[in-house]
Amino acid sequence: MSEQIFTTVGTRPIRHDGVDKVTGRANYGADLSLPGMLYGVVVRSPHAHARIRSIDTSAALAVPGVKAIITGQDVPLVDVKLGMGEGAMDLKDMSDNLLARTKALYHGHAVAAVAATSLAAARAAAKLVCVDYELLEPVLSVDRALEPGAPILHDDLVTQARPPIEATGPTNIAGRLELQRGDLAAGFAAADIVVERVFRTPTSHQGYIEPHACVARVNEDGRINIWTSTQGPFLVRDATAAMLGLDAANIKVTPSEIGGGFGGKIPVYLEPLAVVLARQTQRPVKMVMTRDEVFRASGPTSATKIRVKLGAKKDGSIVAASASLYYEAGAYRGSPSGAGAMCMFAPYNIPNFHIDAYDVVVNKPKVAAYRAPGSPMAALAIESAIDEIATTLGLDPVEIRLTNAVTEGNLAPYGPPYGPIGFRAVLERVKASDHWQTPVAPGVGRGLACGFWFNAGMSSSATVMLGSDGSAAVITGNPDIGGTRAAQAMMVAEELGIPVERVRPSVADTDTAGFTEITAGSRVCYATGMAVIEASRDVREQLRGRAAKIWGVTVDETRWEHGRVVPVTPSDARTPLTVPEIAAKLAKTGGPIIGRASVNPPMAGPSFAAHICDIQVDRETGVSKVVRYTAVQDAGKAVHPSYVEGQMQGGASQGIGWALNEEYIYSAAGVMENAGFLDYRMPVASDLPMIDALIVEVPHPGHPYGVRGVGEVPIVPPLGAVANAMSHATGLRFTELPLSPPRVLARLQQGT
Amino acid sequence: MSEQIFTTVGTRPIRHDGVDKVTGRANYGADLSLPGMLYGVVVRSPHAHARIRSIDTSAALAVPGVKAIITGQDVPLVDVKLGMGEGAMDLKDMSDNLLARTKALYHGHAVAAVAATSLAAARAAAKLVCVDYELLEPVLSVDRALEPGAPILHDDLVTQARPPIEATGPTNIAGRLELQRGDLAAGFAAADIVVERVFRTPTSHQGYIEPHACVARVNEDGRINIWTSTQGPFLVRDATAAMLGLDAANIKVTPSEIGGGFGGKIPVYLEPLAVVLARQTQRPVKMVMTRDEVFRASGPTSATKIRVKLGAKKDGSIVAASASLYYEAGAYRGSPSGAGAMCMFAPYNIPNFHIDAYDVVVNKPKVAAYRAPGSPMAALAIESAIDEIATTLGLDPVEIRLTNAVTEGNLAPYGPPYGPIGFRAVLERVKASDHWQTPVAPGVGRGLACGFWFNAGMSSSATVMLGSDGSAAVITGNPDIGGTRAAQAMMVAEELGIPVERVRPSVADTDTAGFTEITAGSRVCYATGMAVIEASRDVREQLRGRAAKIWGVTVDETRWEHGRVVPVTPSDARTPLTVPEIAAKLAKTGGPIIGRASVNPPMAGPSFAAHICDIQVDRETGVSKVVRYTAVQDAGKAVHPSYVEGQMQGGASQGIGWALNEEYIYSAAGVMENAGFLDYRMPVASDLPMIDALIVEVPHPGHPYGVRGVGEVPIVPPLGAVANAMSHATGLRFTELPLSPPRVLARLQQGT
Repeated sequence: MSEQIFTTVGTRPIRHDGVDKVTGRANYGADLSLPGMLYGVVVRSPHAHARIRSIDTSAALAVPGVKAIITGQDVPLVDVKLGMGEGAMDLKDMSDNLLARTKALYHGHAVAAVAATSLAAARAAAKLVCVDYELLEPVLSVDRALEPGAPILHDDLVTQARPPIEATGPTNIAGRLELQRGDLAAGFAAADIVVERVFRTPTSHQGYIEPHACVARVNEDGRINIWTSTQGPFLVRDATAAMLGLDAANIKVTPSEIGGGFGGKIPVYLEPLAVVLARQTQRPVKMVMTRDEVFRASGPTSATKIRVKLGAKKDGSIVAASASLYYEAGAYRGSPSGAGAMCMFAPYNIPNFHIDAYDVVVNKPKVAAYRAPGSPMAALAIESAIDEIATTLGLDPVEIRLTNAVTEGNLAPYGPPYGPIGFRAVLERVKASDHWQTPVAPGVGRGLACGFWFNAGMSSSATVMLGSDGSAAVITGNPDIGGTRAAQAMMVAEELGIPVERVRPSVADTDTAGFTEITAGSRVCYATGMAVIEASRDVREQLRGRAAKIWGVTVDETRWEHGRVVPVTPSDARTPLTVPEIAAKLAKTGGPIIGRASVNPPMAGPSFAAHICDIQVDRETGVSKVVRYTAVQDAGKAVHPSYVEGQMQGGASQGIGWALNEEYIYSAAGVMENAGFLDYRMPVASDLPMIDALIVEVPHPGHPYGVRGVGEVPIVPPLGAVANAMSHATGLRFTELPLSPPRVLARLQQGT
Repeated sequence: MSEQIFTTVGTRPIRHDGVDKVTGRANYGADLSLPGMLYGVVVRSPHAHARIRSIDTSAALAVPGVKAIITGQDVPLVDVKLGMGEGAMDLKDMSDNLLARTKALYHGHAVAAVAATSLAAARAAAKLVCVDYELLEPVLSVDRALEPGAPILHDDLVTQARPPIEATGPTNIAGRLELQRGDLAAGFAAADIVVERVFRTPTSHQGYIEPHACVARVNEDGRINIWTSTQGPFLVRDATAAMLGLDAANIKVTPSEIGGGFGGKIPVYLEPLAVVLARQTQRPVKMVMTRDEVFRASGPTSATKIRVKLGAKKDGSIVAASASLYYEAGAYRGSPSGAGAMCMFAPYNIPNFHIDAYDVVVNKPKVAAYRAPGSPMAALAIESAIDEIATTLGLDPVEIRLTNAVTEGNLAPYGPPYGPIGFRAVLERVKASDHWQTPVAPGVGRGLACGFWFNAGMSSSATVMLGSDGSAAVITGNPDIGGTRAAQAMMVAEELGIPVERVRPSVADTDTAGFTEITAGSRVCYATGMAVIEASRDVREQLRGRAAKIWGVTVDETRWEHGRVVPVTPSDARTPLTVPEIAAKLAKTGGPIIGRASVNPPMAGPSFAAHICDIQVDRETGVSKVVRYTAVQDAGKAVHPSYVEGQMQGGASQGIGWALNEEYIYSAAGVMENAGFLDYRMPVASDLPMIDALIVEVPHPGHPYGVRGVGEVPIVPPLGAVANAMSHATGLRFTELPLSPPRVLARLQQGT
């Protein structure tokens, strides 16, 4: 791809939605209230594993103001999948998760929902819903889940067990993926050094600031309106329709602003309940989770156990690798173990490897996607093992990775050969960075780790409207999580040669935007951006037609050049026309102009990242402090560098929190004991240094500007980077997260 | 145009917005409230004509809760026009009408505006705004306005006076239009009968149920949101921007549902005031007119004085016609006198004619458009004169009109030759109607009158989104006044071969819809409908591409047929694909589909109407009662016949009200004395019989389905039909409206 010249792309304009957001004017999920609205509250299981014998709602129904109570009996369980192939979403599980039918599978599992005229009445009634439970032993770890004789969560879960787990009846294994290449035994036989370790990561949560919230209204003619904080308004529409047996064409979903999602606002928890309650009561119903409910009943990411074995030559070249990944799915199948397996060795060209990955159900909330789902835990394992080999062999951590780094033409462990990728460029940038070139301070440990993410494609749509004043509006259907309004406006500005301030980006509802998949998979700037660019080019083509009309020539006699239409044959009578000049004559030349495009591109260009972490440990308390941190990443092309940097800084911050402190602490009964931000310890600004973000740009040839996704890969390296830094700071190898003060202190006191 | 076969067009589905509207769920202009919102109130002139010496706001500013007061000094008067050519809107006048700068030109003219934390505080403060006025004599009729020595409203109004009005200095004549054909003197000389009459119609109001209302918010970054009840959100945006010197690209206008407009919600009265108050206070500002304000300060239609002279042969053929039209413009130029002049003789093929039409300013509110602006008053004059000739000559009222009726190829009085038109078909339908064939009951008078309207084209846009479930959404920018959501959904359904219930029509804001001119001129179903049809066809073309991909053939090997894509060459391997079948494979074949189109068609096909009115008069009280009424009209093609009938019934009802009772009653000081629905007497359902609506369909070749506009022409015949019926009921010729009981009684008592 030849170097492109950009005018707007690569600059840093103020985001169009910025003022609304910083002044509190933007409306989030809980901000809407409608006349006559009821408040919906979910009744949740106080047991982690229990059979539901019966539910008595009579006392609750007697509470003044209560208008409806629903249980699993009110919503038939549907056995359908949404979407096709691997990415299909199992709505049967989602529906049973919505409202437990026969068993409560985790502490916090919804068993009923109440709608009342006030939140207080709804809460009072919820407490009076009497559920007769038969208690069962909870399964709280993959180890216990796989033990012979362990309680089985789903009696019908039989087909997925395969060797080495032998089973004739049902198991807790919901899925298994195996990847291999070459001759593993020969590879290890050829190795000069072999490292084998088992790593564990805890259940941790995305920690978005805004809890799940929605309002549903059912009109007398069956038309339904849902306002909700979601990453996917079209998914909410289609999943709600499928789960309730409704026609999606009768449902309009309006996405609110979204106060974070990170994958956790893809599943549907409240909307169908609100719709059923609204339908029963013929009044709008609002449902808002508390923070406690978000922790207990929305999807965290998997706790994992990962065994990795790595064999290398003395020069650091890896000759063999094997790994077994056990990822907790929570109560229903669907952990990101497969993605973890595919990502784990993706940065390295390893001739002989074997991976098996297990999706294991346990009595915890069903996991949800969390930023590069599955990859950070796998990276922790491989990056720690490489670090250990480098340390043992006395090799530079960057050099050993450069020795093994994949490059264009190498096969990805999951199959296809890589196209142009930026992993080597990222490692070279690390080497050249001020951070890497600055000697490690005394008492500080420095860790390096890398990471990989696929980035997604999928369907997206955009429309671009040109005004007669030469300004433009762009409409998409992706809730703006990471600054995508600004990025999309910039693409329109770039294509039309107009100032970005004169482009108005809007996120529209499902009746107004063209069909667009979820805001996830680092796909919005890539795939939706591609639709925006194509829609803008559709405008450009029409502008050529208008210029041709103005000049009295054919369209073929015009061409687009640097934001203007110019005649193919220069002429005094035909001076080049800018967009505002043509726009001013729209009415006279055939009316307004709308550009539109829809795309469904393949998977986006993969991105690689490398993070450097300097950490200091207080040996008396085990408290650690990140003192310097640098994130390097291949963005392909950074449309708005500030927001790419923001993604890198945000991903690093989340990963650091996950590495150092975040974890669900469970009681033996399976009750989360720290379901609040005071006890679930996320890093705040004062906990972290400024995170330096260094963008590398190796264009992705599948995108007009070379864009890769940027939102996810920055959370992949931090777990390994922090663990490696901690190892160098203490001389001890850490394999279990979080590296919280008690755990670090215990290891320091233990001395090994 | 060959007869088209329609599937959905011509049926009568339930309107998509029906339930929302009948259950009170639809949101109108005054329904929005925002946190921290202020209430804006306008201070209005208590004098019909006065120079503003000074305004003292100090006492008003001291009222607790008052946050801002603005006067004309706060908004510089801009001298710009919006749009081009004849249709350009004079924003200087609109701006001075918004807030009087140097003179109050009518009773109710805005002179200041107050924003306060409560409506009560704002109203209290408004009363304390002290304006020092120098009183001037008000000019309250065209007669007085044209008298030598009459007070002059605008000192700079000099250029528009032409013979026969001789003037060297400024006059009250704001415009004059002259139309002529043939040799008028020779024509009259050849006539066997000549009738000459002077007709007068009063100031009357559109009487929409919903008063003007808006909310404006100005963000810290200068971006502005306006929610308003308007016929033209893009016009509100562009006019507000132009009047306040702002960039229209920074203004987003969201149209509310609209409780009637009829042309009266085209001008901008409140929005710029709300924006200025919101900008000064940095809080949202809501402004809602009272009914009193709607009458006194929003645009009614012109009071008129029309002299007509008609010469005919004994067989009823009209050989000469002349007319002078004097239309009150209200305080600023811009009466529909020109349109009246162009429409007046439009139904008849008159070899010799002369018309001059005068736009005359008087001290009344600036007139606004009112349904077929200018045409009803002109029709009253010509239709009364024809009726008088028919009566005198003993000719049938239908036959005399058939004798003179224009047909394809005849020149319109305003220039071009008619294309295919339906006037003769309408008259034949009248003849064949049960009403016309039923003998007139004793004591009843029957009147016939006809009418003409151009119907408008202008710019419109539409986008159509196809869902993977085969449903579709259609977005336009026209507030739905007459059922246009349903009509647009029907067009999409027709084009895609899907049920209309599976099409979701939306009216979007100015950032989301493509540029679209106002909902007016009977243009929405025609012009915006054309955009909807073209956008649907854009979807169809893309569906052909998808089918080609599914079949592995080129697009040329597919064609569209009856809602399906079929292979050009039939094949067992390629069975025809319906829209839902292709839609289900959208993701696999390239992503979603959006269709888009923008159009700027020329003037739509003209429409003609003829109404039959049977009236009964109580000779003791002068009270009249319409006992039977039939409206016949050429719709071109009725997309949703119920809504075409509704337009015909609504137009007839408004016209009957105008003919019988509606009028502004002014005091000598120029104060309207009946500014409320109790005293301004509009007909209610119990006042009228069921109005029979007979649709004639002579397709307009300029539209894919043959659509003409339908909304305006039904108000054109009623004035004449009622007046003619009254004449036949009483034996007296009535030339002055309204035919209210006191006036009718006086004539009955007078006996001539």
